[in-house]
Amino acid sequence: MEKGRVEAFSDGVIAVIITIMVLELKPPHMPTWEALRDNWHVFVSYVLSFVYVGLYWNNHHHLFSACRHVNGKVMWANLHFLFWLSLFPFTTAWLNEAEPLPASVPTALYGFVLLMTALSWIPLSRALIACNGGSDSRLARAIGGRGDWKTLASLALYLCALVSAPFAPILSCVIYALVAALWIIPDRRIELEISS
Amino acid sequence: MEKGRVEAFSDGVIAVIITIMVLELKPPHMPTWEALRDNWHVFVSYVLSFVYVGLYWNNHHHLFSACRHVNGKVMWANLHFLFWLSLFPFTTAWLNEAEPLPASVPTALYGFVLLMTALSWIPLSRALIACNGGSDSRLARAIGGRGDWKTLASLALYLCALVSAPFAPILSCVIYALVAALWIIPDRRIELEISS
Amino acid sequence: MEKGRVEAFSDGVIAVIITIMVLELKPPHMPTWEALRDNWHVFVSYVLSFVYVGLYWNNHHHLFSACRHVNGKVMWANLHFLFWLSLFPFTTAWLNEAEPLPASVPTALYGFVLLMTALSWIPLSRALIACNGGSDSRLARAIGGRGDWKTLASLALYLCALVSAPFAPILSCVIYALVAALWIIPDRRIELEISS
Amino acid sequence: MEKGRVEAFSDGVIAVIITIMVLELKPPHMPTWEALRDNWHVFVSYVLSFVYVGLYWNNHHHLFSACRHVNGKVMWANLHFLFWLSLFPFTTAWLNEAEPLPASVPTALYGFVLLMTALSWIPLSRALIACNGGSDSRLARAIGGRGDWKTLASLALYLCALVSAPFAPILSCVIYALVAALWIIPDRRIELEISS
Repeated sequence: MEKGRVEAFSDGVIAVIITIMVLELKPPHMPTWEALRDNWHVFVSYVLSFVYVGLYWNNHHHLFSACRHVNGKVMWANLHFLFWLSLFPFTTAWLNEAEPLPASVPTALYGFVLLMTALSWIPLSRALIACNGGSDSRLARAIGGRGDWKTLASLALYLCALVSAPFAPILSCVIYALVAALWIIPDRRIELEISS
Repeated sequence: MEKGRVEAFSDGVIAVIITIMVLELKPPHMPTWEALRDNWHVFVSYVLSFVYVGLYWNNHHHLFSACRHVNGKVMWANLHFLFWLSLFPFTTAWLNEAEPLPASVPTALYGFVLLMTALSWIPLSRALIACNGGSDSRLARAIGGRGDWKTLASLALYLCALVSAPFAPILSCVIYALVAALWIIPDRRIELEISS
Repeated sequence: MEKGRVEAFSDGVIAVIITIMVLELKPPHMPTWEALRDNWHVFVSYVLSFVYVGLYWNNHHHLFSACRHVNGKVMWANLHFLFWLSLFPFTTAWLNEAEPLPASVPTALYGFVLLMTALSWIPLSRALIACNGGSDSRLARAIGGRGDWKTLASLALYLCALVSAPFAPILSCVIYALVAALWIIPDRRIELEISS
Repeated sequence: MEKGRVEAFSDGVIAVIITIMVLELKPPHMPTWEALRDNWHVFVSYVLSFVYVGLYWNNHHHLFSACRHVNGKVMWANLHFLFWLSLFPFTTAWLNEAEPLPASVPTALYGFVLLMTALSWIPLSRALIACNGGSDSRLARAIGGRGDWKTLASLALYLCALVSAPFAPILSCVIYALVAALWIIPDRRIELEISS
């Protein structure tokens, strides 16, 4: 089957996810800069989640642009990935609701969903490789080198953040931002493979 | 007429449906695991509804990928199907609001909407077959064998769940999960027909 | 310019409009059939608005499928049309909030937005005709005969409903349902022109 | 890489942004014209924001229709632009919440987000030019003349509005409307370049 509709549906779901998070940005009740400033953490978490969702959309775009076909397995792996991504508005909202900021448990849950999203990426890319020529394919070559250190480093950092959440939740949040920074540079290898 | 925009519009509607359900996941007021655990049923119902909507999207994708044309009848049958699907966020929300959990009436309504969605699938696939070569077509062959036992079994199980809802709503919920499991395996027959 | 993105954007906006109306379907606080029945008018107005938005999507699909090009004028006429359509969730919500049901002013506003949406359709189809070959084109022929009585009858009926709203709002609501019924049959003329 | 998915994703995000603003249009609690009239400012701000988002969508459409390729830089510049655009529902909501209307700080924030969105347009168009043939390309020629006075005038007017917000917020709002009026005429130069 063609990949077109899987891309279109994923675009729709990710577009809704990235946009409804703004519904959590409740306008302050007083029209003052102080009232706005008191909500600074809400903006920081909005930016962080926006960057994460944007990042996953970018990688999703790169991943699918390197292949042509999909099958039932790819579709379920994709839905599984979208499921974890769809929890971002919830975990972001809880992170902001809790006092004092950031609270341990919401910080840990935020990281847990990040970790599960990262893990759900693995069966998705494997199913795509299997469906598009197997381990000798262009996609497999393009992904092969990358998965190594960046994915492993991210998973390790998420685990560190989960460990530090009960003691120093602010450190966990810094780690989340670090991992995002690590991935902001798009995957040049797929781009190179495609243009070659 | 071409099928492209019907697919795109359906993708959009289903993407919004599957994502706005997350707005019902209200963050707990206390930042503790206990507060989260008290909401476990909300997550279970979210997962169930997410799987159902994903499942219908998958089948919608398979169904339309096997045909080329649409007409006015297909468009209304499709809107009728989307109407019942659009009630999922509502019935899921009511299931979670009621106490004790799960309550009989919301469980029955949840099953009723599942039943109506399943029934609305029948005129949709018939209109598509009529519009794409009739009962001798590739689509008709692909669907022919499948509709038989799986659809009938689902309808029968939904009816059982409706009957059991007043006495044992938890049993009805188990049945809903069972039907979902039955359908998670995508329709290989359409896939085989397409690739052949 | 190509029409593709105007269609895609319109599909997106209409998909969100038709789906966020379901957020107005607040689950009853009691898990009983009585509580659900007390909300029957909410469902009726949801169905009516769903049908109207679906109807406009169908006609939008038919209209654009008959032409190829768009220009700046078409884009603004399309946005103007989407603006009035985007007010449907608001007018539907007000219709349900008021007591006793249906209240005169919300009923009149509901009809006013229906009227403005119908009127906004005229510059949109004119801009499309002008951009796709003018009054001799296939599109102009296809629309020509139709616009006559159905559009005029709808506008006249909307005006009747606006007049009756202060005295008999329920009559106005019946008229709205009648106009919807009038349009449910898709525009066979465009379909015939396209297939010929 | 092809531009298709970047367009589709942007369409999705902008469609959600333009539509969820309607969720801020809370129905008045009394079913009277007076209650509706008391909310007139909410409608005015909704119209203004709707026009702005529609305007950016139009320009986005024009900009991308003039080029073929995207790369990682374009994708991040596009996400950066969408980020500022996604704040429109928030700043519009705050503008309406504050008393007296319009309040200085929300008016200034509204203008600040407008300014940042306008500024985020510059790296986006530059990245697209760089990716599509550089400064000698058709796109560069089409944009070249335009950017000059309209963009500069807008930026200057936004700054004026930011300065006037503490003293005369109503003047700032008039300026926002003026800038929107300035841009409503779509960019004929790109249209001409494309059709030639």
